[in-house]
Amino acid sequence: MAVAEAGDMDSLQVDLGSRSYPIYIGQDLLDRPDLLQPHIHGRQVLVVSNEIVAPLYLERLQASLAGFDHRSLVLPDGEAHKNMATLERIFDRLLEQRFNRRCTLVALGGGVVGDITGFAAACYQRGVDFLQVPTTLLAQVDSSVGGKTGINHPRGKNMIGAFHQPNAVIADTRTLNTLEDRQLAAGLAEVIKYGLIRDAEFFVWLEERMEALVARDPAALAHAIRRSCRNKAEIVAQDERESGIRALLNLGHSFGHAIETGLGYGTWLHGEAVAVGMLMAARLSARQGWLPAADVDRIRRLLQRARLPVTPPDLGADRYLELMAVDKKVQDSGLRLVLLRAIGDARVTTEFDTGALRQVLDGG
Amino acid sequence: MAVAEAGDMDSLQVDLGSRSYPIYIGQDLLDRPDLLQPHIHGRQVLVVSNEIVAPLYLERLQASLAGFDHRSLVLPDGEAHKNMATLERIFDRLLEQRFNRRCTLVALGGGVVGDITGFAAACYQRGVDFLQVPTTLLAQVDSSVGGKTGINHPRGKNMIGAFHQPNAVIADTRTLNTLEDRQLAAGLAEVIKYGLIRDAEFFVWLEERMEALVARDPAALAHAIRRSCRNKAEIVAQDERESGIRALLNLGHSFGHAIETGLGYGTWLHGEAVAVGMLMAARLSARQGWLPAADVDRIRRLLQRARLPVTPPDLGADRYLELMAVDKKVQDSGLRLVLLRAIGDARVTTEFDTGALRQVLDGG
Repeated sequence: MAVAEAGDMDSLQVDLGSRSYPIYIGQDLLDRPDLLQPHIHGRQVLVVSNEIVAPLYLERLQASLAGFDHRSLVLPDGEAHKNMATLERIFDRLLEQRFNRRCTLVALGGGVVGDITGFAAACYQRGVDFLQVPTTLLAQVDSSVGGKTGINHPRGKNMIGAFHQPNAVIADTRTLNTLEDRQLAAGLAEVIKYGLIRDAEFFVWLEERMEALVARDPAALAHAIRRSCRNKAEIVAQDERESGIRALLNLGHSFGHAIETGLGYGTWLHGEAVAVGMLMAARLSARQGWLPAADVDRIRRLLQRARLPVTPPDLGADRYLELMAVDKKVQDSGLRLVLLRAIGDARVTTEFDTGALRQVLDGG
Repeated sequence: MAVAEAGDMDSLQVDLGSRSYPIYIGQDLLDRPDLLQPHIHGRQVLVVSNEIVAPLYLERLQASLAGFDHRSLVLPDGEAHKNMATLERIFDRLLEQRFNRRCTLVALGGGVVGDITGFAAACYQRGVDFLQVPTTLLAQVDSSVGGKTGINHPRGKNMIGAFHQPNAVIADTRTLNTLEDRQLAAGLAEVIKYGLIRDAEFFVWLEERMEALVARDPAALAHAIRRSCRNKAEIVAQDERESGIRALLNLGHSFGHAIETGLGYGTWLHGEAVAVGMLMAARLSARQGWLPAADVDRIRRLLQRARLPVTPPDLGADRYLELMAVDKKVQDSGLRLVLLRAIGDARVTTEFDTGALRQVLDGG
């Protein structure tokens, strides 16, 4: 993985052999046809966005697609629409327009738009090209790297999907200026996650610079995005199909998915659920004797400074366990969790005390 | 690719690197847990079948799955059900049963069951294991090799899908005894196709043995299946993602898909449409001066002896062209067709006379 600086833009390569792709990070990259167009191989382009993002950025992106046969599809906003019915709308549109297998889909929006558009690209005519233009911090640091795409099922999140790598990711940091505070915080949860699982130095940097991030300082944001993407890209390059080390990226996610499903999709944002989930994982780690209580406090304080929730919703331990049992991370061998040996050192384990887990699930 | 003979069973390896898999061909293989079970890695197995095949063979297959947590889902029969609604039934069932990502889906049936079950396996939790137990000649010689999975869309066949290789294919030739004559003939169309595109010697063998095949002579059927699978496996091993030589397998398919869509799915069987499509391709090849008229007659006679239709439905050239324009094989550069230089030598080309094509589409 190479990191090259070029004026106000960074680029970073995700190394996946023939499926390698660049991530561009910088200001006003939406207006850069020189970045987008080399990654489009056919003539037909469908930009998929949502009703919040499209009025802000669709026109600028379309201007960068001049010369292509480009169309757009604007979806309703929100996780509740990341489902089969919305997926079918994309297929219907592609077929109405007679898009062929050389077409390119462009996702302009947050994680929901990226996941569903990527999955549509994975399945349309058994796989077409796909570009990510993430406009939320969460999407820029998380879903834009790794090729996971998919939709939700009433019985579980991301239960239906595919691994499908984009041709390129274009992260325009200027788009974060229009992001709601709550969405920014949700993105910061995943940023903090990279510090927790494998980058203690970055965690310390976040402790120093959290107020700058919350204030949307452009240099601080660019650094956080770059460092997050690099951490994720290094993991994904080692484990594209999530058979081993990649599971560390699920820190907080087993708890978080249970919260999202238990409360109904969209009540809590994904990042909010992950934030509390990471704290729950830290608490269980402390109960195991893996993590000092002082570090649990450091994590809680950093999440609070990022304006993230730190109190789990009271679903009751039984309901939590029921919801976690259907989670993808459950193997035949029983519940697997990502826990912390230290800040910056996460481990996947099935070795934990069920009583301690129940105490954590009950808010302890 | 190795072919090993072992008593009454042949096996043949499809070489795709880490995704290589064996095809077992022989009598009563349904009753061989020693073949099935080594290819199942988790505990949970869902057998997907249809209302025609399940009463005949499901119980025997289940007996071979003793020891696993196996369930079954019986779908309605027919191409009309190869759609999103049926796909969702499979996902619903998997999630109701809390199947995890180590589960295995087994397709017991023809091409429709195989395609939709394989696609469900490709997408469930972003990809789970999959075994093919094809029970029609068409599925044994065609869809069981190559990893193409998918569903239809009202605007086009197989428009939504994935490449997903099975862990193994188990072709029990005894299941062909219960196949309707018309279904057997549809399978023979694809068998004849392998002769036409790359195996002139096999075409001559088919001219010698067609009556034995129609009479379901076991030795003749086993030879035809083995030779067909070997031809397809050799092509797929060279071109897993259908970027080049694999397109030759589409001989007759652009015409055939137009017929299937134009008449409505299920009016003609896929193999019947492909049979007429191959004859149309041969006629166009003759009009190009590529193929002697005598060879067009040989092809027509062999199709007739296989009890296949040889007269295209009268949709009119305009409607044919409209239907062919949305076909996957259409690239930005215009309509691409597979034509014959000779029996046993097919070529993909965009070089053909539109007037000649219209004459063929009008039945000439």
